[in-house]
Parts: sequence; structure tokens; C-alpha cells
Amino acid sequence: MEPKNRLNEDVDQVNDTIARVRRRGGRLKDQQVTLAHGAGGKASASLLQHVFFDEYGNDLLAQGGDSTLMDLDLQGGKLAFSTDSYVVNPIEFPGGSIGELAINGTVNDLAVAGAVPKYISVAFILEEGLDIETLRRIVLRLKEASDKAGVAIATGDTKVVPKGKGDKLYITTAGVGVVPADRVPGFARVAPGDRLLVSGPIADHGMSVMMARGDLAIDAPIESDSREVASLVAALLDAVPDTRWMRDATRGGVATVMNELAETTGLGVVLEDEAIPVRPMTRAACDMLGIDPLYVANEGTFIAVVPEAQAEEALAAVQQAGAPEARLIGRIVEKPEACVVLVTAFGGTRMVDKLVGDPLPRIC
Amino acid sequence: MEPKNRLNEDVDQVNDTIARVRRRGGRLKDQQVTLAHGAGGKASASLLQHVFFDEYGNDLLAQGGDSTLMDLDLQGGKLAFSTDSYVVNPIEFPGGSIGELAINGTVNDLAVAGAVPKYISVAFILEEGLDIETLRRIVLRLKEASDKAGVAIATGDTKVVPKGKGDKLYITTAGVGVVPADRVPGFARVAPGDRLLVSGPIADHGMSVMMARGDLAIDAPIESDSREVASLVAALLDAVPDTRWMRDATRGGVATVMNELAETTGLGVVLEDEAIPVRPMTRAACDMLGIDPLYVANEGTFIAVVPEAQAEEALAAVQQAGAPEARLIGRIVEKPEACVVLVTAFGGTRMVDKLVGDPLPRIC
Repeated sequence: MEPKNRLNEDVDQVNDTIARVRRRGGRLKDQQVTLAHGAGGKASASLLQHVFFDEYGNDLLAQGGDSTLMDLDLQGGKLAFSTDSYVVNPIEFPGGSIGELAINGTVNDLAVAGAVPKYISVAFILEEGLDIETLRRIVLRLKEASDKAGVAIATGDTKVVPKGKGDKLYITTAGVGVVPADRVPGFARVAPGDRLLVSGPIADHGMSVMMARGDLAIDAPIESDSREVASLVAALLDAVPDTRWMRDATRGGVATVMNELAETTGLGVVLEDEAIPVRPMTRAACDMLGIDPLYVANEGTFIAVVPEAQAEEALAAVQQAGAPEARLIGRIVEKPEACVVLVTAFGGTRMVDKLVGDPLPRIC
Repeated sequence: MEPKNRLNEDVDQVNDTIARVRRRGGRLKDQQVTLAHGAGGKASASLLQHVFFDEYGNDLLAQGGDSTLMDLDLQGGKLAFSTDSYVVNPIEFPGGSIGELAINGTVNDLAVAGAVPKYISVAFILEEGLDIETLRRIVLRLKEASDKAGVAIATGDTKVVPKGKGDKLYITTAGVGVVPADRVPGFARVAPGDRLLVSGPIADHGMSVMMARGDLAIDAPIESDSREVASLVAALLDAVPDTRWMRDATRGGVATVMNELAETTGLGVVLEDEAIPVRPMTRAACDMLGIDPLYVANEGTFIAVVPEAQAEEALAAVQQAGAPEARLIGRIVEKPEACVVLVTAFGGTRMVDKLVGDPLPRIC
């Protein structure tokens, strides 16, 4: 690289930074969110422009108005539609924030339904008094997550509630995607003999959020697994189009998702304790708190049921697509009917029931 | 009607009621929302089944999972996508509740974009301690509103936040609809000479909510205008396909929407004070509180810009479709550029600026 080019680059960088600072600092005078920001007038417009549009403005949002119109080619497939509210506390934690969660959670719900995620809506409920800088950080992370997931922010909304009627901010996203006509995984396709694949170590998200709350006697550097899985799912479906069923193991963790699978299909699910990946730090934290990692929420980890004959192929595809810690963790059996069993390292077995209590509230 | 049939009807009614009471009362033991209802386990499933599905279960929701797949025929048109969070306080008020608002608001945003609303997602953020009976009532009203608007509840979510971190409940809906290829109103089509049509009396919603809060010195029986306007928009577009532009006058009221129109088009908007319908009770309440009805939110009232030559036809179509109090209230002019002017009964004029302060927070 020539010195001159280098200099130009530096100057460009400085100019970019100045423009950015000017754009950010110079226009929105408020340091905190006020009720006026939610009233639909000038203050609302200013917040919209100088926080949201500055970070993630695009052609779709530039349409203005309260609806966005877009092209969508279903090519004989189906429309997939999903929504989730995110109320995680704290809003920032090792490995992520409510911003990434709000994108990844909804994108992943679409992906595991066999859909290619296309568009997402983002609705904020802000608490009066929230720092604008915190909001900006969340919005930036949300934008980066949407870019990574290849999903376009198409429409949004902002409301403000009085101090004490919210908790910094809540985000609700809804996503639409397209399921190709030849790609509809579903409970009905699951059969005895099929294998279970998990895309990565479990329980990191829930334990990371627990640690970040700081109200426990222990502290461990655990990072959330928050990520989009659409790219992993695409690789899996390319390699093994006959993949039976997929689900991301969010609230209630792997145990709850497996119970849903067993209940709905009437088949048995056998999990091999030894095979289920859990990071040592996460396992240690779970042990100390008496929490079973099977029940802890994940935000970037999904379970797939794959045909036995293609199980290794499926595993290789997911590992190579960016999830090297994916594992085969169990299988579908005819009996015991409609329940989930864990086989331990010592050859013992125990039932894995659905989550009853509430060990970890507000995890997403 | 014969006595025997009458009797059978009565018996059927009693049976219906028993079934309903049994279904409602007999299964969900909790009287109030708890944090466990939001944790994704058994309690969540029970709330989902016995409150939400009992009221609005349908084939789409029965798919289970976190995404819903559906058929959609775009027929060469565009997909319309819209979202809004609803944080109105109180959650029930004369003429409506947060349940109807959450459906009508989003349906109307789609409708005024020229779309036929098809599917809607519904995400609840519940505050711990909320009465289950209150929730049921809201859910039922939401279901009734979706039936009226002809939109299917396709997917949803429920989160619970601790007491003091919410306010009974917040709802976020997202809607998808289809805009026929030949039906794309937009700012670009607005031209000097065009007339302005309002679909009904303004300011009822905001004033109704204000009254319902009960913290004012006055009290007046004002009902919200909350309703779907998709049927009105359909009638208008049938009668006058050349309708230029539409918008529902929600947060910030007619004044804010008209300012947006003026700013975006660079044209002037002239409103005739005398022609703008305001119910006497609403006007009296506004006068007493020193609030200009032009800035008060509506939830079932839209503004359309129509070609001058077909203005009367447009008005008749909307009136006959179920909005007898619709009126023509002004016109588009070349100058003054990019601003909104109100012509008073005495021939005076005054500028109508955008909303700056926040007279009515949490109105939707």
C-alpha cells in the first residue's frame, strides 16, 4: 500500500468520524428519553431520525408512513410469519444485548420453520428516562444483527411509557420469510430411528444473563450464544433436504422443546447425557446453582431431527457452516411413548419433564 | 318462531354457557398472571391454552411452533407490512380497549397504504399480578375486532415482566396485507386542487382516554372512535380508484398527519375549520382543557386526498360504507408551500404546526 493512499484513507476516516459525531451529537439535544418522544409529534420525529434512521435507515423505511410495501416472490412456497417480544434483564450482557436477541430470536424462529427470513419489523417500548446513548448502542447492535442475518428492517414503531412502567426498553419484532414449496419440515415427518442434532453447546444464554444480573454469589465469564442460525439451517437443508423437523431451544431450554416434540408426535425422545455439549464454565455455574442445563434458554442453538442414514452428513454440514461444536445427542424411539428420557453416563435413565417452575425469568 | 324451537334455542344457550364457564373456569387455576406464565414451561402452556386459544384459537395457531406458515397470493401486487405497540392507559375506556386498538390500529395502517389486511401477529407483555379475567376480556375484544376486520390472528407471543416493570399489559401487533398491483396510493400522486376527506368526527379517541383516566376536573361521556377502516377504504378505492393518498390520523392527530403531507409533497394544505366534524361533547371537553382537537389522536378515522372531480363521489362512497359523518374538509394548494393553514369561520387564517409538546401521552 502506498503512503499517499494510506494518508487518504486516514483523512477519509477522520472525515467519516467527524460526520458521524456531528450527525449523532449535533442534532438530538436530549440525553434521555422523554414522554414527548412517544407522542407522535416533533420530538418523536427527531428521535426517529437521529437515533433509529441514523443507525438503520434504508430504502424500505424511507417509504415513510406506517406500512411498508415490498416485493416478495413466494415462488409457489408459503409465507412464514413469526413474532416475539423481548424483555430480557439486563438489556446488555456478555455476548449480546436485547438488540441482537430481538433480531436473532425472530429470524431463528423463521429459519427453523424452514423459511428464508426476508423482512423484520421492530417496535420499541421505551421507558422515560432511558439514556439516549444506551438506546443508540442497542439500535446499532440490532442493525448489525439484521445485516448478519440478511434480513431487512422494513417497518417499526416507538412508544414511551412513564418511568416505573417499563424497564429501560422492550422490543417486539415480527418477521416474514418464504418457505420454498419443497421444504416443509414438520412434526409429521419425524419417525423412530431418526437422530437428534444440536447445533452447539447449550445453556450459555440463560447462564450469561443470570451472571450479568450480578445478584448471585458467583461470577463466571459466560457468553450468550446469541446468533442467527438461518445460515446453519440453510446448510443443513442443502445437505439433507429430508431433515424432518427443527426448533430453536429458547425459553424452557432443550428439555421443553424435546417434550413438545415427544408430546406432539407421540414418540419417545432419548437423549444421551454424555453427548450433549455444555461448556465447562457453564456446567460449573449450573451445578453451583442447582440448575439443570437442559432447562436453560439458548438464543442461537437449535435442535434438528435428521434421518439416521444421513445423520453424519447433517452433522458435518452444520459444523462446516460455522457451528463446529454441533453434536448428535440422541434419537427418536417408538417406546416409551410421548416422553423424554435421558440416558446417563453410567447407563441409568431418568425422565426429563417439562419446565414447571420458573428458575430464570426474563431471559429473552 | 315456534315455541319448541325457542325452547331448543334456550337449552342450546344454557349448554353453551355451561361449556364456556367450564372451559374457562375449570382449567386455569390461577387468578392472576405470575412470572411462571412467561417462562416457557407448563404454566406458559396453560395460560396459552386456557386464555388465548380458548378465545381465538384457529387453524393457523394450531400449527404450533413459533412460526406460522400460510398461503398468500400476491397476484403481482406488493406485500404490505406494519407494526405498532399499544401502551394505552387505561387499558379499557368508553368505546374500546387496548384489545381493539391493537387490531384496528395495525389493520388501519395497512388499509390506508392501499393494502387488503390478511394476517396479524399479537405479542403480549403482561405485568405480574394482572387479573386473568381482565386479560380474558381484552383477548376476547381483540378476537372480536380481528373478526370484524377480516384479519386472521396468525402467530403470537406472551412475556411476563415483574410487578412495577410494566402497566397491566402492552400489546404489539404486526400485520401483513396485499396491495393489488393497480392500487398504490402515494404522496407522489397528490396535486394542487385535490380535496381532503375525513372519514368521521375527530378527537374522540384521545378525549375518551383522557376522560377514562379520571384525573381531570371534568367528566364527559365521550366514546373512542376505535374501529377498522379497511372496509371504508375498500369502498373508497372501488368508487374512486384514483384516490391519491390516505393516512389514519392517530398519534399527533389530523394536524400532524397534514403537516407530514405538506412537508413531503412540498404543497400547501388548507383546512376549513367549519367543515371539520367534531362532536359537541368532544369540542366542549377540548375547549375546557385548552386542547386543539386537530392534535388529538383518532383510532378509526382517516384522511384521504381525492381528485377534485370525484370528491363528492368519494364522500358518498365512504358515507354509505358505514361512515355517515365523513366530510370534505379542505384542499391541496400550490402556495403557501409545504405548510398547513386553517381557514376559520370568520375568514381568518392561522398556521397549523406539528405537535411539539405532549398534551396526551399513552393514548394508543
